Amino acid sequence: MKVVDSDTHRLHSPLAEVEGGAAQSPREHPGRVDAIRDALKAAGGHDFVAPRHWGVEHIDAVHHPGLARFLEGAWLQFNERHPGTRDVVPDVFAMGGLRAGMTPAAEPQAIEGRLGYWCFETTTPITEGTYAAARGSVDIALTATALVLDGERAAYGLCRPPGHHATHALYGGYCFFNNAAIAAHHAAAVTGLRVAVLDVDFHHGNGTQQIFYDRGDVHYVSLHGDPARAYPFTVGFADEVGVGRGRGFNDNHPLPARTDDDSYLKVLERACQQIAAQRPGLLVVSLGLDTYELDPICDLALTTKGFARCGALVAALGLPTVVLQEGGYYVGALGANAAAWLSAF
Amino acid sequence: MKVVDSDTHRLHSPLAEVEGGAAQSPREHPGRVDAIRDALKAAGGHDFVAPRHWGVEHIDAVHHPGLARFLEGAWLQFNERHPGTRDVVPDVFAMGGLRAGMTPAAEPQAIEGRLGYWCFETTTPITEGTYAAARGSVDIALTATALVLDGERAAYGLCRPPGHHATHALYGGYCFFNNAAIAAHHAAAVTGLRVAVLDVDFHHGNGTQQIFYDRGDVHYVSLHGDPARAYPFTVGFADEVGVGRGRGFNDNHPLPARTDDDSYLKVLERACQQIAAQRPGLLVVSLGLDTYELDPICDLALTTKGFARCGALVAALGLPTVVLQEGGYYVGALGANAAAWLSAF
Repeated sequence: MKVVDSDTHRLHSPLAEVEGGAAQSPREHPGRVDAIRDALKAAGGHDFVAPRHWGVEHIDAVHHPGLARFLEGAWLQFNERHPGTRDVVPDVFAMGGLRAGMTPAAEPQAIEGRLGYWCFETTTPITEGTYAAARGSVDIALTATALVLDGERAAYGLCRPPGHHATHALYGGYCFFNNAAIAAHHAAAVTGLRVAVLDVDFHHGNGTQQIFYDRGDVHYVSLHGDPARAYPFTVGFADEVGVGRGRGFNDNHPLPARTDDDSYLKVLERACQQIAAQRPGLLVVSLGLDTYELDPICDLALTTKGFARCGALVAALGLPTVVLQEGGYYVGALGANAAAWLSAF
Repeated sequence: MKVVDSDTHRLHSPLAEVEGGAAQSPREHPGRVDAIRDALKAAGGHDFVAPRHWGVEHIDAVHHPGLARFLEGAWLQFNERHPGTRDVVPDVFAMGGLRAGMTPAAEPQAIEGRLGYWCFETTTPITEGTYAAARGSVDIALTATALVLDGERAAYGLCRPPGHHATHALYGGYCFFNNAAIAAHHAAAVTGLRVAVLDVDFHHGNGTQQIFYDRGDVHYVSLHGDPARAYPFTVGFADEVGVGRGRGFNDNHPLPARTDDDSYLKVLERACQQIAAQRPGLLVVSLGLDTYELDPICDLALTTKGFARCGALVAALGLPTVVLQEGGYYVGALGANAAAWLSAF
């Protein structure tokens, strides 16, 4: 399979993530890409290609244009006010309840306020190189998409930072731009065909769902830890089925803790049936591998063999397929799990 | 003047505040109350009384009832999931944009999600004793109000934690329950007269404004650092004048950095004129002293003598007055500044 990757992601390497108010060593770090790349090279059969550069208009096509403008300048604006800050993290958030009964908030002027206007959490620091890294991750996603649009049966984009938590106008959850949504929108626009997004990351891809919630041309299907217990907590429930023209094009499958290979594959089979029923022209897979049994921040129980079975099942859809990397935090098996999924596919 | 205070506030003493993702020594700590109490005792002329206990219905009268229920159980629920956590801080926030185009979020089930549903920032940890301390602060505010309703010309409630950032359904900014709003609502309900809230804390009292924004029976008037540069960034602008029956009963006076005594007093005089024009029966003062020239987190330039002039100016309104402590973080002068304001009053 064609694998699109680059080292641009190294520009985004925060020193810490802030969880529950405490700084901890980042779960989402450059070593994740190294692990996957090494494993794919060792496995063989993959053809590594560099990404092309793509214009910001592809990002603005699914995100509020202010998001890219903000991310481009945020680190510098923060450092003008607080010189020497390496990792920029918001602390006050423009929650709707702050202005309940008033007109919604305009974008604040002060950088501290802007951070909490464009972001929804604290584990996603902006470093000096974050914008370039996020743009690079989008370049990988769009290059992989272009390969498939040009006739490849499938291509894999080794995206980092990941993307599926980024909504129309919010970044967070390690995600800045929604690589999968940008890829799916691009494919739908170029082909005029329906695109399916299958999101198998442990965490619900709230951003992808939100971006396409009112659209019938992109069908979002997700298997994930039940938000009754799992991040992002407020979205990802089974009764979220889309709205307007998007009604019927959003399928959530929240899963109980410790779901194992067999149970997971039954739900994945149902998800694939839902995808096939809508007759898409192309499939984008948000490939999170944090459903692994040893993942340090998640609670499903898939095995490396299970990932191979998943890859084979998705391949059986017979669709042109863009596979984009999302999460996966047990680095010791991350490469093996990616290789298993992709090789079986 | 009657001073209502207690030591219940000591139950809320976080180890750190998280600002910009970094834990730092708390600015809002029990020593603030000690400094004020010591200075008032040294100044003399004050009569210290203990608060009575008041029912939670007074809190529920201005806050979403879920807020008190949440705060009562949050520390325990978090510790059931993460044993040994001393200070509980949210990291993922239920921003409106997460579900843009969908129905608004229901209250999450998981404690991590509930935290970010009821809170808007990271500097306001919940400790084991926080709920009791916050209830105690409300008791102080309501007891001071009762003293004035019973005929005292004025009373001072040495409230801690402070309150004016807490909105109908959000805590944050060191504030859990909005002491001033609870006091003002109680006074308006008991007397049937209009109540004015004069908020002179450096930070805009976004919570008090939001709670009364559509009400004509409570007139909110605030002098504060311009939210174009100052916390809370998204609210507190001069064009926020109230809505519906509250239209004309919200007056914001955003101030430039380094505003000094003379400039400040001119604006305070205008604010007092606005209050007098609405002929209230009672005044609640949100007395923040973080407008002081040396305050470590603010940027106005009032002096101790300036605070005395402010107290005298507010006294000249001739209204029954409940003074409630809000912010003030330069502890070396906090007591002197409170004593200056109250003695001049």
